[in-house]
Amino acid sequence: MHKINVGLIGFGTIGTGVARVLIDNASVISDRLGAEVVLKRVADSDTVRDRGLSLGEGVLVDDAELILNDPDISIVIELVGGTGVAKDFVLKALGSGKHVVTANKALISTCGQELFEAAAENGLDIGYEASVGGGIPLLKSLTEGLVANRIESMYGIINGTANYILSAMTFEGRPFEEVLKVAQAEGLAEADPSYDVDGIDTAHKLSILLNLAYGIHLPPDNIFTEGIRSIAPLDIKFAEKFGWRIKLLAIARSGLNGIEARVHPAMISASHPLSAVEGAYNAVFIKGDAVGSVMLYGLGAGEMPTASAVVSDVVDICRNIQKGISRRVEPSYGVNAGAAEMAIKPMEELSMPYYVRFSALDRPGVLSKISGVFGEHGISLSSVIQEERKDGGIVPLVLVTHHAVESSFCDAVAEIETLDIVENKAVYVRIEENIGGAE
Amino acid sequence: MHKINVGLIGFGTIGTGVARVLIDNASVISDRLGAEVVLKRVADSDTVRDRGLSLGEGVLVDDAELILNDPDISIVIELVGGTGVAKDFVLKALGSGKHVVTANKALISTCGQELFEAAAENGLDIGYEASVGGGIPLLKSLTEGLVANRIESMYGIINGTANYILSAMTFEGRPFEEVLKVAQAEGLAEADPSYDVDGIDTAHKLSILLNLAYGIHLPPDNIFTEGIRSIAPLDIKFAEKFGWRIKLLAIARSGLNGIEARVHPAMISASHPLSAVEGAYNAVFIKGDAVGSVMLYGLGAGEMPTASAVVSDVVDICRNIQKGISRRVEPSYGVNAGAAEMAIKPMEELSMPYYVRFSALDRPGVLSKISGVFGEHGISLSSVIQEERKDGGIVPLVLVTHHAVESSFCDAVAEIETLDIVENKAVYVRIEENIGGAE
Repeated sequence: MHKINVGLIGFGTIGTGVARVLIDNASVISDRLGAEVVLKRVADSDTVRDRGLSLGEGVLVDDAELILNDPDISIVIELVGGTGVAKDFVLKALGSGKHVVTANKALISTCGQELFEAAAENGLDIGYEASVGGGIPLLKSLTEGLVANRIESMYGIINGTANYILSAMTFEGRPFEEVLKVAQAEGLAEADPSYDVDGIDTAHKLSILLNLAYGIHLPPDNIFTEGIRSIAPLDIKFAEKFGWRIKLLAIARSGLNGIEARVHPAMISASHPLSAVEGAYNAVFIKGDAVGSVMLYGLGAGEMPTASAVVSDVVDICRNIQKGISRRVEPSYGVNAGAAEMAIKPMEELSMPYYVRFSALDRPGVLSKISGVFGEHGISLSSVIQEERKDGGIVPLVLVTHHAVESSFCDAVAEIETLDIVENKAVYVRIEENIGGAE
Repeated sequence: MHKINVGLIGFGTIGTGVARVLIDNASVISDRLGAEVVLKRVADSDTVRDRGLSLGEGVLVDDAELILNDPDISIVIELVGGTGVAKDFVLKALGSGKHVVTANKALISTCGQELFEAAAENGLDIGYEASVGGGIPLLKSLTEGLVANRIESMYGIINGTANYILSAMTFEGRPFEEVLKVAQAEGLAEADPSYDVDGIDTAHKLSILLNLAYGIHLPPDNIFTEGIRSIAPLDIKFAEKFGWRIKLLAIARSGLNGIEARVHPAMISASHPLSAVEGAYNAVFIKGDAVGSVMLYGLGAGEMPTASAVVSDVVDICRNIQKGISRRVEPSYGVNAGAAEMAIKPMEELSMPYYVRFSALDRPGVLSKISGVFGEHGISLSSVIQEERKDGGIVPLVLVTHHAVESSFCDAVAEIETLDIVENKAVYVRIEENIGGAE
């Protein structure tokens, strides 16, 4: 049976999972592929730690060059992470005629074009299925399974940490900071949680999805991004009252005047399939003009789910190698000449309904004053809830607006925040009413 | 730009959808593919009916031979349906060196091996993504996206008609026959609904999934198949009480002693993601040893979703043609020499919990007698509900068993049905407790 040699750089959690899958499932993979995938070399600065699996003699080395310079290795798996040395490894691998597989969303979303061009110049493949949605066959579905469709919208829960925190806040009624600490203690959140809870990771992934769905290159820094730190248990309780759930979403929608791309918590109907995506699970709800609504659901992170995606990319490239070809599917629509640069709609011009909670004085005339400010900005209200009573004290006052333009809404809220009848900053959450429905 | 000619046989609902996608989305497809897919000829006995879209002059013909004998056509799309003339068309196309795409689950599940062998002999591809799960990129996910995994289990809601009927029965509390009539009036069910409501269609599709996941050929006729006709609104009400939903499932599970394959209605937890799959939607919940649980969800039938899948197969084959190759992915694991024939576990030996509803006399001692029969067959009960009172009359008596062996359970029920304290046949539904969980 034909053998294809693979080198793995980065032997941490995901790297260990990849090695485990390649070893444990070798017979399944070779049955399906018709060739043997051999993990010839693994490079990591730590060659000592016990990862609970045995590589062959001499396979584990501390020098990535032994992989990058090995002419017998056809595919390099980069699992170092980050955009520093990882980028060098990938460029060097491509420069030495090796295909690349990576799970590195930061690298692909910020330096993707450079890497894709290097791959194109050398006639090589670069697979990054694992960079979005962990083990979910998401990128392949977008680029192949749904290839006949114009993608109308994508709504993704693609950060397991943020979703875990929101789920726990919902089911346990505890505040963000408390749940975060538990998540950190359980290893589900980083010591610096910013990447996850402030939406940065989600924006990286959305940037990748935008490229594959629309052929546009929108750096994550240019994507409107808001995290979940301001959400309080109170907001989750009010959401329930309205029949909603709060989820951190990556949103992309194509319309007549361009593309919407944004990351923020959103109120969605509790009966929508995305609302049932709990804990560390991820899901992306995709609307295509032919296929209608499709949802892909699974574990968005973790050693083995991510390894499943990495190895599926490896097998994909092996299938090309078996047939003596490469680049059967362009790794990025962006390098495809036909892909048009489409305009991104400015966030401040978008229009949607909003949920907003003020801490307001419980005094006659307060609601009139606040709704008056909204009225002056052309915004009408669909609901008002003020349940607590504390005569002359501060109580939560919740308003839901009809469709309002983002900039007008923000101006109105800023103006209300200056009034002496409200305390603290307002908390607001955008409402997504029509996920997968017609625009 | 390179042109690839396609011929379409069968210009009914799905055929019209395929033509619509190929015409309306031609620019998207050619951008992504780097080649133009040309619908050169469409054959149908009805060349007169207005399908609401304009093919070019002379494209629509009434003779399939004009496609099968045209040396410029590389791919034949078969959308005639059934296993008669459709099979001849497919074999003839393969015999004339043309790749084939079909949505025909009956054909693939019953004659698949013959077609796969013909394709293999001629070095051709045969795509059938549309045969299971409509527009959901399901088969591609199984064979490519999840290729690194041993598939531990698959639980599918893969018949939209049956799911629509169960959803309507659940939300409207109406009986099967009534909901079926509405579905028939709305064109959601056939005049002879047997194919859908008796699980036959689901068994066809399960046969295809079994082949792709395990490399086994289990003809649909050999799959244990039970439909939904016996389910009453009363059973749905009791299910709700227990926190369950009733769904018609295709089930495949691999274990130490072989593979389980069965189609029947089942009680599943109301909080399981499959329970949220309503109406005409389909979903398959797949457990892989690396990836964990993955669910793929979307419209399982209909003109445009099915067309999306058909055209994705066409583009897949075009990508091979562009690279001068074919059979990059085996169309069936079954023709792969490495695929082992695995034993199918006999249905009567499986063990699971059961829900059973008797119409029993409301009289002291009845429960003792019935539970006594179960006890004699080694079956213990976890719950008993008899809410209605009708002294000396007939009332519903619901029992839930602990794990019981199918044959023992059926023997016990048959014995109880002969007792003069029960009337009519018992209604029972198998309980699936642990979908996607560990065995």
